[in-house]
Amino acid sequence: MDFTSFLTSLGTSFVIFLVLMIVFAFLSSRPGNNVVYYPNRILKGLEGGYKSRNPFSWIKEAVSSSERDVIAMSGVDTAVYFVFLTTVLSILVLSGVILLPVLLPLSVTDHGMKAQSKTQTSSNGTFSELDKLSMANITASSSRLWGFFIACYWVSIVTFVLLWRAYKHVSCLRAEALKSPDVKPEQFAIVVRDIPHAPQGQTRKEQVDYYFRTIYPETFYRSMIVTDNKEANKIWGSLEKYKKKLAHAEAVYEGSKTTAKPEGTRPTNKTGFLGLVGKKVDTIEYCNKKINELEARLESEQKVTLREKQQDAAVVFFSSRVVAASASQSLHAQMVDTWSVFDAPEPNQLIWPNLKIKYFQRELRQYLVYFIVALTIFFYMIPITFISAFTTLDNLVKYLPFIKPIVNIKALRTVLEAYLPQLALIIFLALLPKLLLFLSKFEGIPTESHAVRAASGKYFYFTVLNVFIGVTIGGTLFKAFKRIREHPTLDEISSLLAESLPGNATFFLTYVALKFFIGYGLELSRIVPLIIYHLKRKYLCKTEAELKEAWRPGDLGYGTRVPGDMLIVTIVFCYSVIAPVIIPFGALYFGLGWLVLRNQALKVYVPTFESYGRMWPHIHNRILASLILYQITMFGYFGTQKFYYTPLVLPLPILSLIFGFVCAKKFYPAFQHPALEVAANTLKEVPNMELIFRAYIPPSLRSEKIDDDRVEDALSQCSRTAPV
Amino acid sequence: MDFTSFLTSLGTSFVIFLVLMIVFAFLSSRPGNNVVYYPNRILKGLEGGYKSRNPFSWIKEAVSSSERDVIAMSGVDTAVYFVFLTTVLSILVLSGVILLPVLLPLSVTDHGMKAQSKTQTSSNGTFSELDKLSMANITASSSRLWGFFIACYWVSIVTFVLLWRAYKHVSCLRAEALKSPDVKPEQFAIVVRDIPHAPQGQTRKEQVDYYFRTIYPETFYRSMIVTDNKEANKIWGSLEKYKKKLAHAEAVYEGSKTTAKPEGTRPTNKTGFLGLVGKKVDTIEYCNKKINELEARLESEQKVTLREKQQDAAVVFFSSRVVAASASQSLHAQMVDTWSVFDAPEPNQLIWPNLKIKYFQRELRQYLVYFIVALTIFFYMIPITFISAFTTLDNLVKYLPFIKPIVNIKALRTVLEAYLPQLALIIFLALLPKLLLFLSKFEGIPTESHAVRAASGKYFYFTVLNVFIGVTIGGTLFKAFKRIREHPTLDEISSLLAESLPGNATFFLTYVALKFFIGYGLELSRIVPLIIYHLKRKYLCKTEAELKEAWRPGDLGYGTRVPGDMLIVTIVFCYSVIAPVIIPFGALYFGLGWLVLRNQALKVYVPTFESYGRMWPHIHNRILASLILYQITMFGYFGTQKFYYTPLVLPLPILSLIFGFVCAKKFYPAFQHPALEVAANTLKEVPNMELIFRAYIPPSLRSEKIDDDRVEDALSQCSRTAPV
Repeated sequence: MDFTSFLTSLGTSFVIFLVLMIVFAFLSSRPGNNVVYYPNRILKGLEGGYKSRNPFSWIKEAVSSSERDVIAMSGVDTAVYFVFLTTVLSILVLSGVILLPVLLPLSVTDHGMKAQSKTQTSSNGTFSELDKLSMANITASSSRLWGFFIACYWVSIVTFVLLWRAYKHVSCLRAEALKSPDVKPEQFAIVVRDIPHAPQGQTRKEQVDYYFRTIYPETFYRSMIVTDNKEANKIWGSLEKYKKKLAHAEAVYEGSKTTAKPEGTRPTNKTGFLGLVGKKVDTIEYCNKKINELEARLESEQKVTLREKQQDAAVVFFSSRVVAASASQSLHAQMVDTWSVFDAPEPNQLIWPNLKIKYFQRELRQYLVYFIVALTIFFYMIPITFISAFTTLDNLVKYLPFIKPIVNIKALRTVLEAYLPQLALIIFLALLPKLLLFLSKFEGIPTESHAVRAASGKYFYFTVLNVFIGVTIGGTLFKAFKRIREHPTLDEISSLLAESLPGNATFFLTYVALKFFIGYGLELSRIVPLIIYHLKRKYLCKTEAELKEAWRPGDLGYGTRVPGDMLIVTIVFCYSVIAPVIIPFGALYFGLGWLVLRNQALKVYVPTFESYGRMWPHIHNRILASLILYQITMFGYFGTQKFYYTPLVLPLPILSLIFGFVCAKKFYPAFQHPALEVAANTLKEVPNMELIFRAYIPPSLRSEKIDDDRVEDALSQCSRTAPV
Repeated sequence: MDFTSFLTSLGTSFVIFLVLMIVFAFLSSRPGNNVVYYPNRILKGLEGGYKSRNPFSWIKEAVSSSERDVIAMSGVDTAVYFVFLTTVLSILVLSGVILLPVLLPLSVTDHGMKAQSKTQTSSNGTFSELDKLSMANITASSSRLWGFFIACYWVSIVTFVLLWRAYKHVSCLRAEALKSPDVKPEQFAIVVRDIPHAPQGQTRKEQVDYYFRTIYPETFYRSMIVTDNKEANKIWGSLEKYKKKLAHAEAVYEGSKTTAKPEGTRPTNKTGFLGLVGKKVDTIEYCNKKINELEARLESEQKVTLREKQQDAAVVFFSSRVVAASASQSLHAQMVDTWSVFDAPEPNQLIWPNLKIKYFQRELRQYLVYFIVALTIFFYMIPITFISAFTTLDNLVKYLPFIKPIVNIKALRTVLEAYLPQLALIIFLALLPKLLLFLSKFEGIPTESHAVRAASGKYFYFTVLNVFIGVTIGGTLFKAFKRIREHPTLDEISSLLAESLPGNATFFLTYVALKFFIGYGLELSRIVPLIIYHLKRKYLCKTEAELKEAWRPGDLGYGTRVPGDMLIVTIVFCYSVIAPVIIPFGALYFGLGWLVLRNQALKVYVPTFESYGRMWPHIHNRILASLILYQITMFGYFGTQKFYYTPLVLPLPILSLIFGFVCAKKFYPAFQHPALEVAANTLKEVPNMELIFRAYIPPSLRSEKIDDDRVEDALSQCSRTAPV
C-alpha cells in the first residue's frame, strides 16, 4: 500500500466517523430515541434525554465526568476498564512526546533504504514515504541506532511506571468498593464445594450446618444447599414464556377492541411446532390454562428439587463481613479436596450447575480445555479449510437442491464462489467468543465474571497469535519454518519476526485507523440497536415489558472488548520504535475510545455483574506480555540492523519479568481474596440476613409459600429470625 | 571389587556391628550410664535404667512400642520420621518379594556379559559373580527384558500406593496433634511481619492493637512487638555464664572444705583473655560483683529494648484457636507486602532477628541463597582445590614457623603431605550442614524448624548430585561431556547415566552395608557421647546443672539424617531393577535403622522443636524425585539394552509427576496452614492467655517486675486480666 492510498483510506474513515457523529447528535436529541441513547440513566431513574442541540455536548459531559460518576453509574469494573484506557493512552502520549521528535528526524535524514535497494537486487526498488519514517531507513550498524535503543528503554520505563501506578490505583478502587458501608449480599456469603458424603443418619443440611456452626459458633447464620435446578429452571422458563405470551395476547386483544369492532378479536395461535402447525386455539385461554398447569408443576418440582436434588455444594451465610472474608480464604478441611471454599460472587453470577463438579474433575477439565484451546489457536485453519473444501457450490447444490435456481444466476454464482471459502472463517470468527466462553464454563468455573475473564484471556492469545503474528510472518511462513528448523533459537525466531515487521507497518496503521474511526463511530451512533429497537417497537412489542426488553442495552462486553484493545496495544508497542508514526494513531484510538465509551458507560450500557476490578490483574499481565513481545522483537530487529550493542536490549525482558513478579506478589492476592482490613470497615446498618439469604435463591425456586412447609429442605434452617 | 572382597567387607562390618551391640547391652545395663542411654526417659521423669540383662531386650521393647508411644516420648516429627522409614521399608520389601525371585533367575541363566566381552575387545573379559546377577547379564534386545520392564512398573506402583497411604496417615497424625485438647501457646498466636510505619502520634503498639482489634473485636487478646534483642541477649548470655561460674566456684569451694582444711580454699581466676592473663581475683566475689552489675545493666537494657528497639513485626495473640488458625492464613492488608502473617511456631523456634526482614528483601535473599547453593553444589570442588593448593606444607611452614620441628620428622611429613589436600574437603563436608543451615537462616526464614527443613533440602540435592551422580558418572566425565555436547538430549544423558550404573553396583552395595552396620552400631552403642560424658563428669562438672548439660542428648538430627537416608533411597531405587540384590541390603538398612532409632527415640533423644509433621511433604517429594530419577535411568538403560519397547517406560515419569501434583493438591495445604475443622476441636480447659503470652517473651527480656513500670512498652497492653 503506498502513501496516497493510505491517506485516502484514512480520509474516508474520518469522513465516515464525522457523518456517524452528526447522525448521533441528530438522533440522540430526538426524545423517541432516549431509550436507545440513555437507557442506563433511564433504568437508574435519572432524567433521560438531553435537550441541548449542540452536537458536541456529549464530549463535554464525558470529559467532565469523574471516576466516581463512572463507578456510580456503571460499577468498578467499568471504572477499571477506563483505568486501562487511560494508562495505555498515557503510555503512548509519554512515549510519543519523546519518540516522535527524536526518532523521525533520525530516520528521515538517513538513507538506509536506498543503500539496501541498491545492494539487494532481488527486492523491488520502490519504497513508500511511510517507510522512510521508519527504522528500516537507518543504515545498518549506524550509530543513530543508539537513539532507537534509548527509545526502546524509554517506552519500557514509561510502561513500568504507569502500570505500577495504575495497579496501585485499581487496588485502591477495589478496596474502596469492598469497604463500602452498604450491605452487599456477596460480602456475607461463601460458597463451599466438594462436601464429603454426609454421615449416616444426617441430612446434607444438618451436616453443613453442624460443620460450620462448630467452626463459627457465633457468626454462622445459615446455609443453602446447592440443588440441581435443571428441571425447575425449564418449567420456570416456560412459565415465564407463557406469562409474556398472555400479556402480549391481552394487549393485542385490547388493541383490537379500540377500533371499529368494540368486542375485539381474540388472538389465536396453533399449538404445534413454532406456532405453524397443530390445533388452533384461543391464545388467552390457552395461556391461562398452561400457566395454571405449569405453576402447579413448578411448585411440586421445587419441592422435589429442594428435597432430593441436593448437590455436594452449598452457599454459607455469616452475620459478619470480616468472618465471611476470612472464611472464604481459609483452609477448612485437613483433606484439601473436601470442603473447599471461595468467596461468593453476586447471586446472579453463580453458575449453579458448575458448583457440583468435584475438585480433581475441575483440575482435569481445566487442563483439557487448555489443550483444546491451544489446538484451536494453532490449528483452527485446518477444520475451516476442510469445511470450506466441502461446502463448494456443487456440493451444496447436491445436498440442498432447492438453492439450485439461485446458483444458476451467473452473477450471483461468481460472488458466491468467491465468498463461500471465507464464509466458514467469518462464521468461525463470529462464533469464537461464544465458543471460548462455553469452554471456560466447561472448565467448571463457578462464576460468570470469572468465566468471562477466562474467555477473554483465551481470546487475547488467539488474536495476538493469529492476527498479529499470523499477518506479520504470514507470507514468509515457509521460509520461516525452514530457517527455524535449521537454527531453532529464540534469537532466530525474534529476528524473523523483526524482519517482517516494517513491511507490515502500513497495513496495521490502516487497521488501527479503520478500527477507531469506523468502530467507535458505529459504537457511538448505535445505529444497529436503534434500527432493531424501532423495528421491534413497530411490529412486535405490545406490552411495556416487551418494549423494555427491546431497548435493554446489554453490558460493555469486557470479554471481547479488552482482547481487541490488547491487540492494538500489542501492535502499537511493537511498532512504537520501528515506525513511531503509529504512536499518534494508537493514542487516537485510545483517546477516542475513552471518549466514546465514557459516553456509553455513563448513558448506555448497564453492567450485568460486578467483580470489583478483578479483571485488572489480567489486563496488567497482558499489557506486560505485549511489552515483552515488543522487547524481544526489538532485540531481533536491532540484530538484523547489525547494531553492535544489541545484547544490551536483553535486560529489558528480564526487567519486565521481575516487574511482573513484584506486582503479582504485592497486589495480586488482594484481587484473589478480600483483604480483612477492608472487610472490617463498619457498615451503615445491621445487615438483614434474611434478605441476604433470599438474594441467593434462584428465581426458579422462589415461592411465597417457602416458609410454611419446607422446614427440612435445602434452603431452610430451624432457627429462623425475621421472615420477610 | 570382586565378590570375595565384597563378602569380606560385609563380614567385617557385621562383626563390628555385633561387637557394638554387645558393648551396648553391657554398658546400658550399668546404672551409672543411665543418663547416657535413657536421658529422654529421665528428663520425662520416668524410671531410667532397665535391669534386664538380656542383650536383646531393647529389640523387644522397640518392636512392641506403638506410634502413640513415639509421639508421647518424642513428638509428631519423630513419628513422621518413622513413617518415612516404614514406608521405604515396605516399598523395598514389597518390591523385593516380586523382583528377587523373578529377575535373579532371568539374569543368572542368560549370557549377555560373555557375549558382550566376546564382541567388545576393548573391555577386559573379567566380570564378577555379582554382575552375573544384574541386568547387565541379559542379552541385548532379549525378550527377557519384558520381565525387567514389568518389574520397573511394579516398583513404581508399589511406591505410589504406599506413598499415598503414608501421606494420608501423616496428614491424620498432624490433624490429631493439632486438634489435641491441650492448650499449646503456638495455636493461639500468629506472627505478623511487614508492619507499615505507624501513623503520626501513634506508637507501634497502639497501631498493632488498633489494627487487630478492629478486625477481631472479640477474640484479639494482646500483641507483642518484636524487638531487637541483640544487646539484651548478649548481656543475658554473660549473666548466665557468670551465674554458672559462680555455682561452679561455690561447688569447688565446698569441695575443698570437706578435706583436711575445714575453711577450704577459695577458687581464684584471672580476668583477662580466656582466664590466662590479667589480674588474679577471688572467683566467688568477682562473679557476685559481675552478676550484680550485669543484672542492673540487663534491666536497663530491657527497658531500652522494649521502648526503643521495636521492629516492624509482632506476635499477636487471640483467645480462640480457630480465629488464630484462620487469621494465620488470611490476607489482612490490601497491599500484600504489608501486614503479612503466618502461624506462630513454638516460642523457642522463632528466629527473632529474621522477623524484621522486609517482604521483598526476603524474596531477594531467597533467590540469592538459591543461587549460592547452586554454585556450591556444582562448583564446590573449585575453592577446595584452591585452598588445598595453597595449604601445602611449605606454605604452612612459611606462615606458621612454629610447626617446623614437627614437619621435619620424616614419617610425619609423608603422612601430612598425603592427607593435607583431603583435609580441606573433609573440613568442608563436615561444615556443610552448618553452612546450609546458616544460608537457610540468612534467607529470612522465621522459624527454626523451617530453617532445618530448608537446609535439609539443600543437603539432599548436594548428596544426590555429588555422591550419587558424581560417583556414577565420575570416571567417565570427559567422555560424558563430549557425548552430551554432541547430542544434548535428555535421552543421551539418561542413557549415559544408565551405562555407568551396573559397574558401580558393588561399590554402592558396600557403601550401604557399611553405612548400616557401622553407622547404626555406633548410633546404638553411643560410645562417643558416653566417653565425653564420663570425661566431663570426672574433670569438669561440679554442679548438678553442669552434669545435666554434659549428658544432654540433643535431638534426632532431622536435618542431616533425612538427606543421608534419601541418598540410600535413591541408590536402592536406581539399582532395584538393574541389580535386584541391592534390595535386601536396602531393606536391611531401613529395618535396622527403624529398630535402632526406635530405641534412641524412645530412650535417648529429646526433640528440640515440634513442627507437627511439616517435614513430611519434603520427604514425600524427595522420595518421588528419587523415583523419577530411577525411572529416567531405566528409560536410558532399556535403551542401551536395545529393548524395542523402551518408550513404554516414558509414561512412568509422567505418572509420577501427576501423582506428585495430585498429592500436593490434596494434602499439602493442610501442612502449610492449620485446617479450621482441626483447630475447632474443643479444648480441655479455658486457655490461660497470660501464660500463653508470657511463653513468647524471650528469656533475655523476662523480668519479675514486668507488670509494674512498663505499661507503654512493646510487651504490655492496657487491659490486662490475670497477671501471674
